[in-house]
Amino acid sequence: MTYDHKYLLDFTTGVFSRVGCNHDDAAAVAAVLVAAELRGHSSHGMIRVREYYELWKSGRVNVSPDVKVVHETPSTAVVDGDRCFGMVAGVRSMRLAIEKAAATGTGWVAARNSNHFGIAGYYAMMALEHDMVGIAVTNANPLVVPTFSVSRFLGTNPLAVAVPALEEPPFVADFATTPIARGKLAVSEKKGEKVALGYVNDADGNPSDDPGILRRGGGMVTLGGDHQHGSHKGYCMTAVIDIFSALFSGANFGPFVPPSVAYLPVPENQPGKGTGHFFGAMRIDAFRPANEFREAMDHWIRTFRSAKPAKKEQRVLIPGDPEREAEKRFRQEGIALVPAVVDDLKAIAAELGFEFGV
Amino acid sequence: MTYDHKYLLDFTTGVFSRVGCNHDDAAAVAAVLVAAELRGHSSHGMIRVREYYELWKSGRVNVSPDVKVVHETPSTAVVDGDRCFGMVAGVRSMRLAIEKAAATGTGWVAARNSNHFGIAGYYAMMALEHDMVGIAVTNANPLVVPTFSVSRFLGTNPLAVAVPALEEPPFVADFATTPIARGKLAVSEKKGEKVALGYVNDADGNPSDDPGILRRGGGMVTLGGDHQHGSHKGYCMTAVIDIFSALFSGANFGPFVPPSVAYLPVPENQPGKGTGHFFGAMRIDAFRPANEFREAMDHWIRTFRSAKPAKKEQRVLIPGDPEREAEKRFRQEGIALVPAVVDDLKAIAAELGFEFGV
Repeated sequence: MTYDHKYLLDFTTGVFSRVGCNHDDAAAVAAVLVAAELRGHSSHGMIRVREYYELWKSGRVNVSPDVKVVHETPSTAVVDGDRCFGMVAGVRSMRLAIEKAAATGTGWVAARNSNHFGIAGYYAMMALEHDMVGIAVTNANPLVVPTFSVSRFLGTNPLAVAVPALEEPPFVADFATTPIARGKLAVSEKKGEKVALGYVNDADGNPSDDPGILRRGGGMVTLGGDHQHGSHKGYCMTAVIDIFSALFSGANFGPFVPPSVAYLPVPENQPGKGTGHFFGAMRIDAFRPANEFREAMDHWIRTFRSAKPAKKEQRVLIPGDPEREAEKRFRQEGIALVPAVVDDLKAIAAELGFEFGV
Repeated sequence: MTYDHKYLLDFTTGVFSRVGCNHDDAAAVAAVLVAAELRGHSSHGMIRVREYYELWKSGRVNVSPDVKVVHETPSTAVVDGDRCFGMVAGVRSMRLAIEKAAATGTGWVAARNSNHFGIAGYYAMMALEHDMVGIAVTNANPLVVPTFSVSRFLGTNPLAVAVPALEEPPFVADFATTPIARGKLAVSEKKGEKVALGYVNDADGNPSDDPGILRRGGGMVTLGGDHQHGSHKGYCMTAVIDIFSALFSGANFGPFVPPSVAYLPVPENQPGKGTGHFFGAMRIDAFRPANEFREAMDHWIRTFRSAKPAKKEQRVLIPGDPEREAEKRFRQEGIALVPAVVDDLKAIAAELGFEFGV
């Protein structure tokens, strides 16, 4: 079945309003989940409604949080999310980063005591309409092993960077710092397929083609795959994102990050509060006249778009191209949901006294 | 032959003083080159003295530059290097970032009209003694192909991030955003060895094991290696560093970055000025009390150091560990230089009317 994105926005806002969020907070959760669907990242879309709902039922999410700034300087702040849904801390923090950038050139906000915040790109892109470059990162459930280790001490920690252009659409990079997203392993496992070597190791640290290996002590590898191919550089990247998300804010780092699903326990001896994020906004005219920057960015984008493809049928992509094309299509054609997700949404709606998809 | 690092500092300062740099600028060039040797990155050490000398002889470096701030806000600035050696713009820009961070919490400085600046880690580490996190990136000669392309449109653009701890030594990540550094290809080629697949492609975009393929139209790949293993994420990283280095400052981007060696021509139709860098400094107490941050960083480092190794003989490294161990050894034992480098240094000294290694 396909659904109009506006319907999914209304429905999802309805779910989170009914569990107790105020309208703005429910709408923020819905906006980020539906943006993921529109941008073609269904692994971060409506499939998460059930996870978030279960997390709330387990008592791990506070639907009437007192989200507040606990520390600040002219260009920085720390936001405590009070165990809110990640989108609530995310939108609040990114707005604050944008305000600070308007005043001092750049704004940098770390958030703690938060939860899974959806696609990082949503927050980075909030900066674009303000003539700013936006940055968003988060740490996440520990599933990833550092180079030379079998300990799952890192998340698939994504990085998003959005850069405005003039006539060209913006550059929007938004990627997990592992070779593939965890969701793709789950898809291969359901299909009974093996995966390519270079995504996961087994419990002894040997490369594995088993997409279910994470349930048998295996771990995902960092970008680069193995040491010979630079996995230590991927480890550095993922570690830097963990440090920016957790150490500036006082959230949990690495192995202590709470799982985004209710069926996995929260780690013991947590050194911080909840999940951590980090947001940045940089006014382009804090560096050079805004139009000059935008024109130069058009030049960058057109130059890279003109790069010679290796194969005739390939084309060199600008980060953000595939997502923008997906969004154009899905806004017109609607968003297709798989039956299992539709069933989940119907069951949740029934529990909350309304209906899905009628 | 091995040489005391202090001797190499004096000698290198002597070389660049004799070509016309003032003492501070010559000492800055020497400090960064010798720091690279001490940290075990000889590809960025004394071997570059000849490259820099030749670049000066070709007229591409201005040894009496008017380095100045051309744009600024409370938390940002743009520095024009006036075609200086990269270290001159680098040290000046990082100092300014640190000053701005002291005043407003964070400082962000983009530099243009510069040249090769050596190891990025040197600048990031300048922040540590100020209770700050330091960041440094630069773009570089185009040798790297975007995913799906055969066009060499990107450099091996490095990222360095330095984070202070309390009792533990600092976390210092400093890495090129490609699977290997270009220098390693040159070493394999000289030895007549093939390289592993996943470092370079041939001129048609097919994986190659030929370390000399760059001279036959080939290109280095981005971190991840191929699309299946996430090279598009490496492309995003490398592209973001290019944009931060060139677009904020008005330097040349991607394919237009001038080569760091005199025997390669400067690209035509350059849209900007020289090579670009980008520096950041973030006061840790702009986010939380400095000691609390430092203690948490000790906890982070000790946790990751305790990760279980995959093999008995392996150990999980904290970024910065190998370099610090190298530095301790080389400060005591001296720095070994290969005969070709020694010959270059002797020849340069003779041209400048002094001697090397007497």
